Amino acid sequence: MEDKIIGRNPVLEAIKSGKAIDKILIKKGKYEGSIVPIVKKAKENGIVIQEVAKEKLDAVSGGGNHQGVVAYASAHEYVTVEEILKKAADKGEPPFVIICDKITDPHNLGAIIRTANCTGAHGVIIPKRGSVGVNSIVVKTSAGAAMYTPVAKVTNIANTIDELKKAGLWIAAADMDGEEMYNIDLKGALGIVIGSEGEGISRLVKEKCDFIASIPMAGEINSLNASVAAGVLMYEALRQRRA
Amino acid sequence: MEDKIIGRNPVLEAIKSGKAIDKILIKKGKYEGSIVPIVKKAKENGIVIQEVAKEKLDAVSGGGNHQGVVAYASAHEYVTVEEILKKAADKGEPPFVIICDKITDPHNLGAIIRTANCTGAHGVIIPKRGSVGVNSIVVKTSAGAAMYTPVAKVTNIANTIDELKKAGLWIAAADMDGEEMYNIDLKGALGIVIGSEGEGISRLVKEKCDFIASIPMAGEINSLNASVAAGVLMYEALRQRRA
Repeated sequence: MEDKIIGRNPVLEAIKSGKAIDKILIKKGKYEGSIVPIVKKAKENGIVIQEVAKEKLDAVSGGGNHQGVVAYASAHEYVTVEEILKKAADKGEPPFVIICDKITDPHNLGAIIRTANCTGAHGVIIPKRGSVGVNSIVVKTSAGAAMYTPVAKVTNIANTIDELKKAGLWIAAADMDGEEMYNIDLKGALGIVIGSEGEGISRLVKEKCDFIASIPMAGEINSLNASVAAGVLMYEALRQRRA
Repeated sequence: MEDKIIGRNPVLEAIKSGKAIDKILIKKGKYEGSIVPIVKKAKENGIVIQEVAKEKLDAVSGGGNHQGVVAYASAHEYVTVEEILKKAADKGEPPFVIICDKITDPHNLGAIIRTANCTGAHGVIIPKRGSVGVNSIVVKTSAGAAMYTPVAKVTNIANTIDELKKAGLWIAAADMDGEEMYNIDLKGALGIVIGSEGEGISRLVKEKCDFIASIPMAGEINSLNASVAAGVLMYEALRQRRA
């Protein structure tokens, strides 16, 4: 699915926002004025630039005022929670789902989707508000995993947890004040909730969870980077599930 | 330990390089010329700015041409490999050391030092060349762990591995083509080698290792983010060491 972004300011803003852009068409000729920062930012972000004739731009922008620039943005195709559960059913596996409660750093979300793929999770769920979406940095950091591991965007994480519980999943929250993860059964139909970088898991979401799973801490510092914590817990789940 | 950086360009470059800077003294008055980008960059990086009289700057710069700016940079205090081993001995624990073979992303090194602390590792070893040093981003990402977990900077990782082996450590390289980590004994005196983001572990270093430990992969993607991979392996070591 592709969206066209037409005109200098909209394209520059789209690049800056980290939106996934497939390529940018720019009118042939000397780059001048606000085309210069667009080209610079595009190069910094590894976006393909294609020089085309004005007529091509007129055609693709359907009469819009393109100012010499049109970008093709690829909208990430989100799935539904049902589709994630169906994926597990189709594979004949107990569902294994990662729920991210307001991850804001795209590098963390990308690394979490990557690890979700590596641990055989069937999908990742993120909230519509308060979370980074699957933008170009997330896709890049996921090292391709965002193409394989489906991501669902939901209105309300707490309601989604209720639905998952109805579907037979046990929900484990990753948090410090819980039972050590080795002592929790992570083998069956499972959702793991990962909290945001600064705040952890919100109270309402935590109350919905069946278990609080904690990662042991043997040093002076008592918390891990969000994507590392998610990775350690997902791998403990994988270890148990394969045992 | 503090280093003074004197003059506009040196201070601006130091900020840009990500060097850990405690504070910047700036001559009282209107900011003009190249002071403006220094203040902007300093604010972006959360560095404290203190306005002082010209006489104060003259005094601290010892007659140097300060151009209205002096920064106090905190040099990270690296330790020796011997000091890391001594820390383990003092605690009466078998040494547990993390060796980073050319990590270039400061967020990854910071997250690795953080996880090293959380898993009770006695220290982290990085090479002098080809690796990011413990700069301000590393310190920040480590969430304080860089203050507790000592870091040694060595000339040659392969030679250091030889020394560690002489000191009785077994060295495990984290790599895909190895024995699964669950089947490797990670309980005794141990060094874990983590490869660089793009290249993995260099051939020479890998050949020096006693084991190659691999992390199981259950999806389409077959590698993790460097700091997640390091975290998963360190936690498997901690799990075994506590069992």
